[in-house]
Amino acid sequence: MASQQFDPPSGTRDFLAGDLRVREHVFATIRDVFQRYGFEPLQTPAFERLETLTGRYGDEGDKLIFKILRRGEHEASGDADLALRYDMTVPLARVVAAYGSQLPTPYKRFVMGPVWRADRPGRGRFREFAQCDLDIVGSTSPLADAEVVCAVADALAAVGIGDYTILINSRRALTGLLRVYRVPEQVGGQVLITLDKLDKLKPDEVVGELVDERGLDPATASALVGDLTAPDAVDRLRAALADDDEGRAGLAEVDRVLESAAPVAGASRLVFTPRLVRGLGYYTGIIFEVVADGMPGSIAGGGRYDHLIESLGGPDTPAVGGSLGVERIIGLLSAEAVTAPRLDAAITIMSDEDAAAAMDFAARLRHEGRSAEVYLGSSRKLSRQLKWAADRRARFALIYGQQERAAGLVTVRDMDSGDQHQVPPDQLATVIGA
Amino acid sequence: MASQQFDPPSGTRDFLAGDLRVREHVFATIRDVFQRYGFEPLQTPAFERLETLTGRYGDEGDKLIFKILRRGEHEASGDADLALRYDMTVPLARVVAAYGSQLPTPYKRFVMGPVWRADRPGRGRFREFAQCDLDIVGSTSPLADAEVVCAVADALAAVGIGDYTILINSRRALTGLLRVYRVPEQVGGQVLITLDKLDKLKPDEVVGELVDERGLDPATASALVGDLTAPDAVDRLRAALADDDEGRAGLAEVDRVLESAAPVAGASRLVFTPRLVRGLGYYTGIIFEVVADGMPGSIAGGGRYDHLIESLGGPDTPAVGGSLGVERIIGLLSAEAVTAPRLDAAITIMSDEDAAAAMDFAARLRHEGRSAEVYLGSSRKLSRQLKWAADRRARFALIYGQQERAAGLVTVRDMDSGDQHQVPPDQLATVIGA
Repeated sequence: MASQQFDPPSGTRDFLAGDLRVREHVFATIRDVFQRYGFEPLQTPAFERLETLTGRYGDEGDKLIFKILRRGEHEASGDADLALRYDMTVPLARVVAAYGSQLPTPYKRFVMGPVWRADRPGRGRFREFAQCDLDIVGSTSPLADAEVVCAVADALAAVGIGDYTILINSRRALTGLLRVYRVPEQVGGQVLITLDKLDKLKPDEVVGELVDERGLDPATASALVGDLTAPDAVDRLRAALADDDEGRAGLAEVDRVLESAAPVAGASRLVFTPRLVRGLGYYTGIIFEVVADGMPGSIAGGGRYDHLIESLGGPDTPAVGGSLGVERIIGLLSAEAVTAPRLDAAITIMSDEDAAAAMDFAARLRHEGRSAEVYLGSSRKLSRQLKWAADRRARFALIYGQQERAAGLVTVRDMDSGDQHQVPPDQLATVIGA
Repeated sequence: MASQQFDPPSGTRDFLAGDLRVREHVFATIRDVFQRYGFEPLQTPAFERLETLTGRYGDEGDKLIFKILRRGEHEASGDADLALRYDMTVPLARVVAAYGSQLPTPYKRFVMGPVWRADRPGRGRFREFAQCDLDIVGSTSPLADAEVVCAVADALAAVGIGDYTILINSRRALTGLLRVYRVPEQVGGQVLITLDKLDKLKPDEVVGELVDERGLDPATASALVGDLTAPDAVDRLRAALADDDEGRAGLAEVDRVLESAAPVAGASRLVFTPRLVRGLGYYTGIIFEVVADGMPGSIAGGGRYDHLIESLGGPDTPAVGGSLGVERIIGLLSAEAVTAPRLDAAITIMSDEDAAAAMDFAARLRHEGRSAEVYLGSSRKLSRQLKWAADRRARFALIYGQQERAAGLVTVRDMDSGDQHQVPPDQLATVIGA
């Protein structure tokens, strides 16, 4: 086998202890926050029936689904009947449809786990990556929107991301915007897609695309982009939206979230952003995105999607949710951010006949919740075994040779200071405190 | 869609909060034990390259591998290039080959996660199920064997399984056994497979199979089965094995584990079992199985497999490991075994204008680590909302109406006793103690 044959498959990763510690720390921290909000965990299978997934993600998305070949006599057909989970929303819709009345109302659930997409692997882009979603299914309350925003904000704070801004808008405000600026209804969606580029392109370029590709007249395009990018854009848009029913309804939604989420997220971090669109077309109300200083793109986002679960085959249920970009968040933390727990005791063995004693010392310590390892190499030299204890980053090494056996004591060596003293075996767990 | 379309795919399960709580409790408990032994976690991708897996599990095993169809222009070929993980051992061999010197020596790792096998689903048999393995790679020490046995024993005790017996044997003792009873070398493996049925078939039936199917002469078959099933089988076999080099070496291995593991597992739970075979052919030294009262089959097992990692494409490295039957262990625990944490506070809302106050109370409590939910329904009736608080199993309900607002106090209702009293908002986290 060529050595690269031992790499994990393209776009996937092996996580050894150090990396895994950071990941699990992030997951556990977020889980703790979500549970304080009363969100319940959910776990669905890695794969779904193929027909559950196909047609849900558009043509481009469909191509990225990992499909599983039929088995046994059907394998030769080359057909697939199952497919790896592509996101967490379609499984949620299936669960809501399957367990309906067994679920609490509203059903607040979070989920953290891998999804799989056959994207071209690249820097920070993987084929197996974790998603972290929280959703509230079955409530139309604007407080549900605020709860999702607050839980996302609290989770970011808990993992140590402090400098972030939560951009908030409403799909209804966007509908009002298009009407107020007299954008023809049939190009509305396309116009929003172009406006979504305002954080990447210059205003002139966006005006150009609106005119050349979307067919807006130049005056409308200039007015729209000019107002959205003006320093007083929020005031201008608040005034403009007040002229339209949907605009007013959208503004009211936004204001309720700004007010309700302020106690948690802080009013200064919550910013009404009239040009925020979010690509996904399924949102029906509040939308939000979290941006962090010095990071391109967003680290979290979400919104209300009142008809998506129905369109995915579930019942017609209102829903609002958010997603944390956990892989990006994990990428921000260095492996040193989460210190490895130190091994409490490395137990040396000076002669084969002391093996049972070493195991007994280890058992006493483990029984009291300490971590302990017994030397498993073949050397019986102390220097060699102390080197092992240092490599294992042990706080203490235990030494039990002829002299200790005669005295019925164990030598406890502090691996940082080199200090040594002797204790009876039944005091080991006290000396080697947690 | 027919309603069964919402079921998870055949042989897989959705885990809602209650079931997930039991599973995660078991995983966390076992993880804690393994970490006290100095085992490190490892996580590999859900899928491997197809050629990494094929040919590793025998013809029957190969048929059970879930294969992933190639993508894009290659999809039409009907070929697979990836496959879902079938066990945790092949990925371990790949990791040892890939990261060799970056890993500690010996490399003690544990892993808990799903594997996938396209078996026919049945009672307690799933196509997606968790495996929980621990292995020590790179040590030939008999203490490594004992450490694995002890960690398994401690893990079982930690999850509350007390009545178990650890059956211990050695492949070398089995080799000696075949030689002592003059079983022709070429049928040795087959004879062991038949002897492995002694826990299911009657002794006579095993003798019959040895004679009829394995071609042993009736006297040899009767002597072998007679000694292995005699009340004093251990004494008879100890005496018999002492006549053979391999038999003596096997006995010595067994005795070292019995002695070293006794401080942890308890001498009475460790039983030398000369007829223990374990199906898998790759073991080279100690083998063990854990059986529990009233449960057919075993709940854990393992052994030493010094050449398996090489045969799987890795370096030639000694190794010993064990596997806990976590799905069976989880099946033993009822959902009630792990009590759901109660919601600390259910926060009612008497009028829309109090929404921000409710969010503020929730934030204060969550900030202090309490769990709190805000009522997200549309009713503004107290009775309806107290019903919701009871459904959520809340310890306390908070009530904040006109009278409370005027007084600047919050009514805290004990949901068990019905007692109510009023406190200032900044004392909520004290009153609703963790």
